[in-house]
Amino acid sequence: MQDPNTLGAVEAAALMASGALTSEQLVLACLERIHARDPDVLAWACIDPALALGEARTRDRERSEGHVRGPLHGLPVGVKDIIDTATLPTEYGTPIYRGHRPAADAACVVAAREQGAVVLGKTVSTELANRHPAITRNPRNLAHTPGGSSSGSAAAVADCMVPLAFATQTGGSLVRRAAYCGIAGYKPTYNSINGAGIKLLAPSLDTVGVHARDVPDAALFGAALIGFDMPDFDRPIAPPRIAVYRTPQWSLAEPSMMAAFDAMPARLRAAGAVVSELELPAAMDALIDASNVVNDYETRRSLAFERVHHLDRLSPTLGDKLSQAVRWTRTRYLDALRTADECRRMLEDGLRGCDVLVTPSAEGEAPRGLENIGRTAFHQMWTLLHVPSVAIPAFTGQAGLPMGVQVIAARGEDVRALEAAHWIQQVLRA
Amino acid sequence: MQDPNTLGAVEAAALMASGALTSEQLVLACLERIHARDPDVLAWACIDPALALGEARTRDRERSEGHVRGPLHGLPVGVKDIIDTATLPTEYGTPIYRGHRPAADAACVVAAREQGAVVLGKTVSTELANRHPAITRNPRNLAHTPGGSSSGSAAAVADCMVPLAFATQTGGSLVRRAAYCGIAGYKPTYNSINGAGIKLLAPSLDTVGVHARDVPDAALFGAALIGFDMPDFDRPIAPPRIAVYRTPQWSLAEPSMMAAFDAMPARLRAAGAVVSELELPAAMDALIDASNVVNDYETRRSLAFERVHHLDRLSPTLGDKLSQAVRWTRTRYLDALRTADECRRMLEDGLRGCDVLVTPSAEGEAPRGLENIGRTAFHQMWTLLHVPSVAIPAFTGQAGLPMGVQVIAARGEDVRALEAAHWIQQVLRA
Repeated sequence: MQDPNTLGAVEAAALMASGALTSEQLVLACLERIHARDPDVLAWACIDPALALGEARTRDRERSEGHVRGPLHGLPVGVKDIIDTATLPTEYGTPIYRGHRPAADAACVVAAREQGAVVLGKTVSTELANRHPAITRNPRNLAHTPGGSSSGSAAAVADCMVPLAFATQTGGSLVRRAAYCGIAGYKPTYNSINGAGIKLLAPSLDTVGVHARDVPDAALFGAALIGFDMPDFDRPIAPPRIAVYRTPQWSLAEPSMMAAFDAMPARLRAAGAVVSELELPAAMDALIDASNVVNDYETRRSLAFERVHHLDRLSPTLGDKLSQAVRWTRTRYLDALRTADECRRMLEDGLRGCDVLVTPSAEGEAPRGLENIGRTAFHQMWTLLHVPSVAIPAFTGQAGLPMGVQVIAARGEDVRALEAAHWIQQVLRA
Repeated sequence: MQDPNTLGAVEAAALMASGALTSEQLVLACLERIHARDPDVLAWACIDPALALGEARTRDRERSEGHVRGPLHGLPVGVKDIIDTATLPTEYGTPIYRGHRPAADAACVVAAREQGAVVLGKTVSTELANRHPAITRNPRNLAHTPGGSSSGSAAAVADCMVPLAFATQTGGSLVRRAAYCGIAGYKPTYNSINGAGIKLLAPSLDTVGVHARDVPDAALFGAALIGFDMPDFDRPIAPPRIAVYRTPQWSLAEPSMMAAFDAMPARLRAAGAVVSELELPAAMDALIDASNVVNDYETRRSLAFERVHHLDRLSPTLGDKLSQAVRWTRTRYLDALRTADECRRMLEDGLRGCDVLVTPSAEGEAPRGLENIGRTAFHQMWTLLHVPSVAIPAFTGQAGLPMGVQVIAARGEDVRALEAAHWIQQVLRA
């Protein structure tokens, strides 16, 4: 058998079900990988090996007694450090909360354990899940950023330290990190995974999602948490009706992304998909501005405690964002929410003729250095639109690093997005 | 001068500005009232007199140094005990969190202090802001419920223990409590007062609002927290265009409510208002069901930690609600959200011909006994619709207790709702 830590979640779950693998073996392999690699990658904020192994042994004992909690039984997961855990410190990526121990687990952590998951540890978040870079490096090339804010979750999954990890998206970071690290990212329909016990940033945008190395793995995790039936990825999926969309930010894309994306429709058509070019109303160009206003306005208010009592312990990046956000009036904010409402309806109309929309996950490869965690231009509009987005690795850029596309469906059509993303990934991989 | 604790917020703020009253005197008067009355009313979960007086003295010193923080400078406020405070225990109305000390203040508490408020103490919440009754009594008649879930906030304000208090509404409790206690309640447009640091229940419904004894007082508090200009209530307000709406739940109203409500349009017309009868599409009848589904589905998930780890410490009422909520599928939940979306558009259309809509706040007077905290039928639809609602005392019922109406405007039109509510209250008082 291959090293257990390199197994995908679906595969590992099957091996545990058949008795060929224990949760303890799997967790141990993950801990060994972390021990070997994390001094370079710096993906983990906190690990308590004894605690994780103890949970794994409990899962193994439960299984031996015929009690399988759910589809995640025995699978280790990483938990982004803006998500509360009562058993491990939760520091929200800032020294303000050094050593903080929440009184309760976040609802999504409870849900994961209810379905059998083992909490492996806490993954590094940028400061309060904002744009000040974290220490984490991109395991594909340590000189590059993994993207933020769930830097640790993406890097840990990409480096086979854990098969699944929780992530969050307020700007568009879940999708971007997946692209930069060459893994899958699944941002469900807004408010599908409950946010209780997660540090609030911009409540109109904040979305909990997951990282995995593959679409079926991400679907396994998402389906168990949200409570929909896991799609059957073994059965052949009918080629989807795909609308290709370049977004108003197309000119920001790197040349290698432009070339690969332009060549994509022919490849998808050759595999049987019906591919069209999507035109969305010009009114939707207002979404980037609207999402900046909503993000700034709400984050300034959500982080009132940190801004008022700990301004000196915030990075200048975040301190400035919170100070400057004072310029957005309530009228401007309400206008931005109205724009979002209208654009949600326009997108629903635009998606009527197709199953999914495919658009770049980011402008191109992960930038060199850790200072620049990348632009949000290609994904922030989808966060505000509340639609499910599945990010998949799609191309290779000039520096040899992965580049991704995201597969988007209408609100609530998460299964459609996951199935189509899997189909598209198979085609682009071939 | 009258006893300072009986002063409204606007009045007290003016006296402090003129130097005729100090924050310390005001807080002291409130503490004395609490000392005298709270053994009967039981509105407070936690009071630390030294802390409150210390804050008040700081405000007085700041003022003497020419530093006025904002319109709430020196005003004491009550904070519902599902709202985090770092300086006072926060127990969410349940023994599960006995003695719990949050690491940070909720954003709304920081915002109130930024505008000058003094935190007087924590007010009693029902268990996790749900329907299991709290110990608090209605100060209008101690044999009656004040309503829930912010039982303490409403009772404390009604009994002149504090001029202003934070409250929250997930079903429709803010509006109902205002009606039962004969005070004002202001539920702003959804997501206007930031929810960071407040126990999450049903994120699509949860709305932070305020209680005060008068509409201008509620407006003062709301405007300072949300950041809109305080309406000028001294200037004559033009009679509003009012649509009277009886809701699909009209048959549940008590005879005295029906009679008083039916007589209201003539009184409003006599004072100069244009009054029409509102008909809303029958499709909106689905809102009650939709709001029950959204509330149950989301609360089950938000309270996952309490449900899984502390089921034995939950009341049977709440335990059953969380268990039974498993029956709502994701499809049914997404349908309910879609219904809400569609009804928001229908209401916007329905409101085009008028400034505000007026509808009962509750079925009638506060029920006798503490066991029944009242029906949500008359207000839960407005929570899901995300519109601002201002509850005012309007009539007197058969038991001599107050009955209320709520004044509702389109999303974002909070000022319009507040001004019209003030106008209507003046007319109905005359």
